[in-house]
Amino acid sequence: MTGLPETAFTTPQASAATGEQAWLSAMLEVERALASAAAQVGVVRPENAQAVVDACDEGALDADAIRAAVVSDATPVVELVRQLRARVPEDAQEAVHVAATSQDVVDTAMVLVCRRAIDGVVADAAVVTDLLARLAQRHRDDVQTGRTLLQDGAVTTFGALAASRLVAVDDALDTLQAVVRDRLCLQLGGAVGTLAPVKDVAAEYLTAVAHRLGLPEPVTPWHTSRGRVAQLVSACAVLTGELAAVAHDVVLLSQSSVAEVTVAHPGGSSAMPHKRNPASAVLVLACARRTPGLVATVLSGMPQELQRSAGSWQAEWAVVSEVLRLVAAAAAHTRRTLDGLVVDTGRMARNAEALGSPLDAGAAGLVVDRALTAHHERRAARPTTTGDAMTVETR
Amino acid sequence: MTGLPETAFTTPQASAATGEQAWLSAMLEVERALASAAAQVGVVRPENAQAVVDACDEGALDADAIRAAVVSDATPVVELVRQLRARVPEDAQEAVHVAATSQDVVDTAMVLVCRRAIDGVVADAAVVTDLLARLAQRHRDDVQTGRTLLQDGAVTTFGALAASRLVAVDDALDTLQAVVRDRLCLQLGGAVGTLAPVKDVAAEYLTAVAHRLGLPEPVTPWHTSRGRVAQLVSACAVLTGELAAVAHDVVLLSQSSVAEVTVAHPGGSSAMPHKRNPASAVLVLACARRTPGLVATVLSGMPQELQRSAGSWQAEWAVVSEVLRLVAAAAAHTRRTLDGLVVDTGRMARNAEALGSPLDAGAAGLVVDRALTAHHERRAARPTTTGDAMTVETR
Amino acid sequence: MTGLPETAFTTPQASAATGEQAWLSAMLEVERALASAAAQVGVVRPENAQAVVDACDEGALDADAIRAAVVSDATPVVELVRQLRARVPEDAQEAVHVAATSQDVVDTAMVLVCRRAIDGVVADAAVVTDLLARLAQRHRDDVQTGRTLLQDGAVTTFGALAASRLVAVDDALDTLQAVVRDRLCLQLGGAVGTLAPVKDVAAEYLTAVAHRLGLPEPVTPWHTSRGRVAQLVSACAVLTGELAAVAHDVVLLSQSSVAEVTVAHPGGSSAMPHKRNPASAVLVLACARRTPGLVATVLSGMPQELQRSAGSWQAEWAVVSEVLRLVAAAAAHTRRTLDGLVVDTGRMARNAEALGSPLDAGAAGLVVDRALTAHHERRAARPTTTGDAMTVETR
Amino acid sequence: MTGLPETAFTTPQASAATGEQAWLSAMLEVERALASAAAQVGVVRPENAQAVVDACDEGALDADAIRAAVVSDATPVVELVRQLRARVPEDAQEAVHVAATSQDVVDTAMVLVCRRAIDGVVADAAVVTDLLARLAQRHRDDVQTGRTLLQDGAVTTFGALAASRLVAVDDALDTLQAVVRDRLCLQLGGAVGTLAPVKDVAAEYLTAVAHRLGLPEPVTPWHTSRGRVAQLVSACAVLTGELAAVAHDVVLLSQSSVAEVTVAHPGGSSAMPHKRNPASAVLVLACARRTPGLVATVLSGMPQELQRSAGSWQAEWAVVSEVLRLVAAAAAHTRRTLDGLVVDTGRMARNAEALGSPLDAGAAGLVVDRALTAHHERRAARPTTTGDAMTVETR
Repeated sequence: MTGLPETAFTTPQASAATGEQAWLSAMLEVERALASAAAQVGVVRPENAQAVVDACDEGALDADAIRAAVVSDATPVVELVRQLRARVPEDAQEAVHVAATSQDVVDTAMVLVCRRAIDGVVADAAVVTDLLARLAQRHRDDVQTGRTLLQDGAVTTFGALAASRLVAVDDALDTLQAVVRDRLCLQLGGAVGTLAPVKDVAAEYLTAVAHRLGLPEPVTPWHTSRGRVAQLVSACAVLTGELAAVAHDVVLLSQSSVAEVTVAHPGGSSAMPHKRNPASAVLVLACARRTPGLVATVLSGMPQELQRSAGSWQAEWAVVSEVLRLVAAAAAHTRRTLDGLVVDTGRMARNAEALGSPLDAGAAGLVVDRALTAHHERRAARPTTTGDAMTVETR
Repeated sequence: MTGLPETAFTTPQASAATGEQAWLSAMLEVERALASAAAQVGVVRPENAQAVVDACDEGALDADAIRAAVVSDATPVVELVRQLRARVPEDAQEAVHVAATSQDVVDTAMVLVCRRAIDGVVADAAVVTDLLARLAQRHRDDVQTGRTLLQDGAVTTFGALAASRLVAVDDALDTLQAVVRDRLCLQLGGAVGTLAPVKDVAAEYLTAVAHRLGLPEPVTPWHTSRGRVAQLVSACAVLTGELAAVAHDVVLLSQSSVAEVTVAHPGGSSAMPHKRNPASAVLVLACARRTPGLVATVLSGMPQELQRSAGSWQAEWAVVSEVLRLVAAAAAHTRRTLDGLVVDTGRMARNAEALGSPLDAGAAGLVVDRALTAHHERRAARPTTTGDAMTVETR
Repeated sequence: MTGLPETAFTTPQASAATGEQAWLSAMLEVERALASAAAQVGVVRPENAQAVVDACDEGALDADAIRAAVVSDATPVVELVRQLRARVPEDAQEAVHVAATSQDVVDTAMVLVCRRAIDGVVADAAVVTDLLARLAQRHRDDVQTGRTLLQDGAVTTFGALAASRLVAVDDALDTLQAVVRDRLCLQLGGAVGTLAPVKDVAAEYLTAVAHRLGLPEPVTPWHTSRGRVAQLVSACAVLTGELAAVAHDVVLLSQSSVAEVTVAHPGGSSAMPHKRNPASAVLVLACARRTPGLVATVLSGMPQELQRSAGSWQAEWAVVSEVLRLVAAAAAHTRRTLDGLVVDTGRMARNAEALGSPLDAGAAGLVVDRALTAHHERRAARPTTTGDAMTVETR
Repeated sequence: MTGLPETAFTTPQASAATGEQAWLSAMLEVERALASAAAQVGVVRPENAQAVVDACDEGALDADAIRAAVVSDATPVVELVRQLRARVPEDAQEAVHVAATSQDVVDTAMVLVCRRAIDGVVADAAVVTDLLARLAQRHRDDVQTGRTLLQDGAVTTFGALAASRLVAVDDALDTLQAVVRDRLCLQLGGAVGTLAPVKDVAAEYLTAVAHRLGLPEPVTPWHTSRGRVAQLVSACAVLTGELAAVAHDVVLLSQSSVAEVTVAHPGGSSAMPHKRNPASAVLVLACARRTPGLVATVLSGMPQELQRSAGSWQAEWAVVSEVLRLVAAAAAHTRRTLDGLVVDTGRMARNAEALGSPLDAGAAGLVVDRALTAHHERRAARPTTTGDAMTVETR
């Protein structure tokens, strides 16, 4: 069972998408694709491929043995393949794990795991952008104190603040989706990247496996070139960071002495029953505290050795899983933070009056209008999201 | 269930010591100590304290509700205390969570969790030092090529290499134990650090709670001064780093073209049945890849706000748990790496002859002797360890 | 003077591009653009704008006072603007720093500094790709041992290794160029992002300033949304990491016991005159050791407060400068590492024979061919580079 | 010249202590100690040693050539020794760089550089503790709102806040001094750690060199066991973090809507002339943003290879220099932040009244008293500091 402390650093969807079952399923999916594709390009007999496909049954795996193998072999796949081999007839052995090595299976499974986990992130983050858009629109002209270095500065509008954050989250979301779409592709090279056992049909085999998994096909294997992984975790961390900027604003504007916004779903205190803590926003900040070090971990592991790394690669799948859970949690907690956010425009105006200057918010409206126009264009171009029944309250 | 990728980044002992049950138990232990100490200093009635102690029954907790509260309140303690209150009579309410706040309970529980988890680390790391001492002694005079920047340099002995690593691991282990002993102490301050509800007996109460938990008493509360936590994770990372230096040596000396050592417990390959991978050593390197970013996470969260942080503190308990598991795994994998390590002194000598200089290892023997003397002194001063039946083979 | 230790972590071009003069020049360039654009959109008189443009003379700045202001104001711009104002007549004051705030000037100057520094990186990295392409082509069919977890695995070719690295460096370079081109844009919002003083012509003013600086125009100000900066340093770190993977291979293949490649420009040793250290490759690894923590620094500073951050922003320009120097050094050292690299194909073949299996490199040739095809396409699409007279030797 | 952005991330003392001259001086100091000690233990003639000592003249070094060598050799010492050799007669060559290797000189010089740089840190940090002690004492009973998760919580005193920070800074300072004193020692092992050329008097030679440099003598060489370096940078980062917690409090309490403290040395704004930014406090936060990633850099480089690392070691001296400058800057900026800090106790009381509960600060006085008692004991035990003429104002 995951330690209690991790509870707030994931979502149910992300836990499922990165959990043991998800990894085992993804690895079996890769093995099935290998077998089918091998039959397609004619290096194994179709009935043997079918026997392997049939054997790739999650329910039949001995997960305990696989876990033990992760420790003894530093990879789950030696044991996974051993179990597969034990479940197919002698004749069909030719169709098991064709031309592949452990890393091919783990890396491609990681790509599948990432793609699924990111779906949940995108759904929540898209709702966040819609909520921000609504705040920007509704408060386009509601004056607020602009604060620089946390000192009262000059007048702006709450809409302009929301609009700037909207553009930033939209940008980060688009970048993440582009990385997932373009860079998370099949890894397949066999023992040392040469696909030796299928060398005569290597190109066809690569295409067939990629096609079956619905993944892009890389120019060359990337077993020890990890820019793709680094780009993924960086994009996740950038999104987390932009979400945390939103949350940070909410925490600061919720301060008792500022009191310009109030969260609709506050957390309690064990010592001070009157407290209405912006708990979700605080958790977003906690998520954003954790992602940067994980990106550094992946980046520091990039200079991987020759044909397979001794240590850096083995650390990646755990770190990637963790980043996926953190960005998912950040998106979910930010959504909850903004959902029903109570904006006290009267208080904002009174606070702004304390600046002693005319309440002139300059071109704040322009900022809002440009952000909303851009958001609507992007939103239309983005796969549909689940955001519908969220509300933003004003009093 | 922990994701499959984390399997090699923990030990059974560390998983138990940092798991949900361990955290809940530790938190209840703190609540029990609070109640008993409150009775001791006379602020609650003994029978009420006893009622609370009796109510602190792990089995009776609704863990699902606590998990939900971690998300909604950003702390498990509001709900934990609610459940405790529901289990004691009206009269005994005075004895629940006396003068404490959520952070007091989580921080002090974290200290208890750390102390227990580190016990397992120390046991394995101490065996590592004994194995290194045995290698140093046995190979005190066995010549080997010294390699600098991975180029053959000059003659040394394998014993001198082991001796240098021995001193480093002993140093790191002593530092870690000192940090745990001296710096991991009680945190207790109540809502804002003033222990207001027990102000007239605050000093006595602090002493009583610390005594009951077997913990040092701090000069002042440390709710937003997190140097203690940062020192702990740094010390864990330094130990992990020194262990990884050992593992790195094993990986490098195991290279097929060097072949001076061979691990006794190799891992296999799914594509190359002949491979005998130094899997445990590789996993140590993977652990050491992961700890530095986590230390940075804790350090970057140090400037915590006023009387309780909004985000940085909430990230700590998860990160600390992770570091504890990683250092435990590093120690266990290093132990396994060295256990039965086969040292080919003949090959070492032949490789060294290729240097073309006399096989003069200088004062390598002195290095060994000094390291062993220091080790034996430290070992005698250190709590006993579990290391007994480990063997180091030579051929 | 930069500390001696930084000497190997920069290039002359990068030191110049990120040095004090470069920053001051870039800031003045921004001030000039502000003045000219303000005249263009009619908010100041042309002759006043011209007076400001004339006053923006680097040689006339009191750099000591600006340095002092960086400490006292936490920004150089307050003092820079004070000096400018002192150099223009009373009438022309209206044309100084129009509608801008300190951060606008520093951020936009940072964009200019980055764009120039990256030019040097691209030049060296493009040569690296050409050198890798030459190695891939020349050694397309030269068999070599594939090594996984640093254990001999199966046969591949040196060309396939070079080809994989080629694709990775090309990918990283393209990504970096895309980030620079698309994401490094004008920042201009004034005190709190509303461009209040020019509100009626804000859109036109933005366009005019961006046009004069040759920069893209953002949808909204990004003063506290730092995804752009994070993406830049991530892309630099990914390129550094891919270059370091190349260097790591060279270090490993240069080992005395492997001896398959030898660098043409070795470093010496103060104690072992016979040593021929792969010093440039080692320095690439040192650069790659340093970048990940810097990326984490920028990422951890992303949740910036409201209209201007109190601390995180102020750390960025120094960290970005450092990353620019590191990636430049990594590219230059990798270029030097590969320049004239001596490849011992005979030794490679003999080492591969030790595997005891037929020297079948599978589809290694396909890997090479695909990489080269992709490289030639990309190279044609990329701005010209300085790479011409580099050589790759084979013996 | 250091880039402008680094200006606020150092102090004049720290720049001098980590600059090129400081490094060259420290390296020559090591070479002098080697020569003298070699004569003392009888392996070279005294007059030859004296010739070397005389040749170790900073003014005579060709620094340009050394800088070039840092790039070509990945170490300055090959060239430094070449220059020394050129300056002593043929007979005295025996006394140059006796039994040493480049790393010995750089590592021991690093230890000397650290010890001197930390002196300046300690001086400023000690003043910070005295200023905190004064604030704690003066405001022992001045009520203030305690704020948790940045929400108003319960009453405390400003003295209790200062007292908690005082203990934390004192702790961090003591730890740093202990690491410097106990762990930063001589490194001397020669080419591969065996001191081969002086093997018969190796122990005596080590003792003599250590004695001449005033450094502790290690049990064994630590060329590839880098726990000492990691502990140093961790201790620097912990101190920086605790200082930043102080600065963070000042920034938060300076907010216009809180207004409980005002810095005496504010920074200005280029767009808002009325601003009085807590610039020094902001710079402390910026320093603390930068140190964690650097600690991770050193930790991630710990698994250094065999007898000398290929990359990780070469990165250290630059990173250590940077950390030294950052902690020095953090101490100086915190000192400036607290110097003359204006504390508005009337505003504190009025803000606290808004809590609506009695102004009962519980045992806040006890917190203050314990902190001050501990501080006075530690202060007496610590080497004297420069703190004298600082003032803390109250209105």
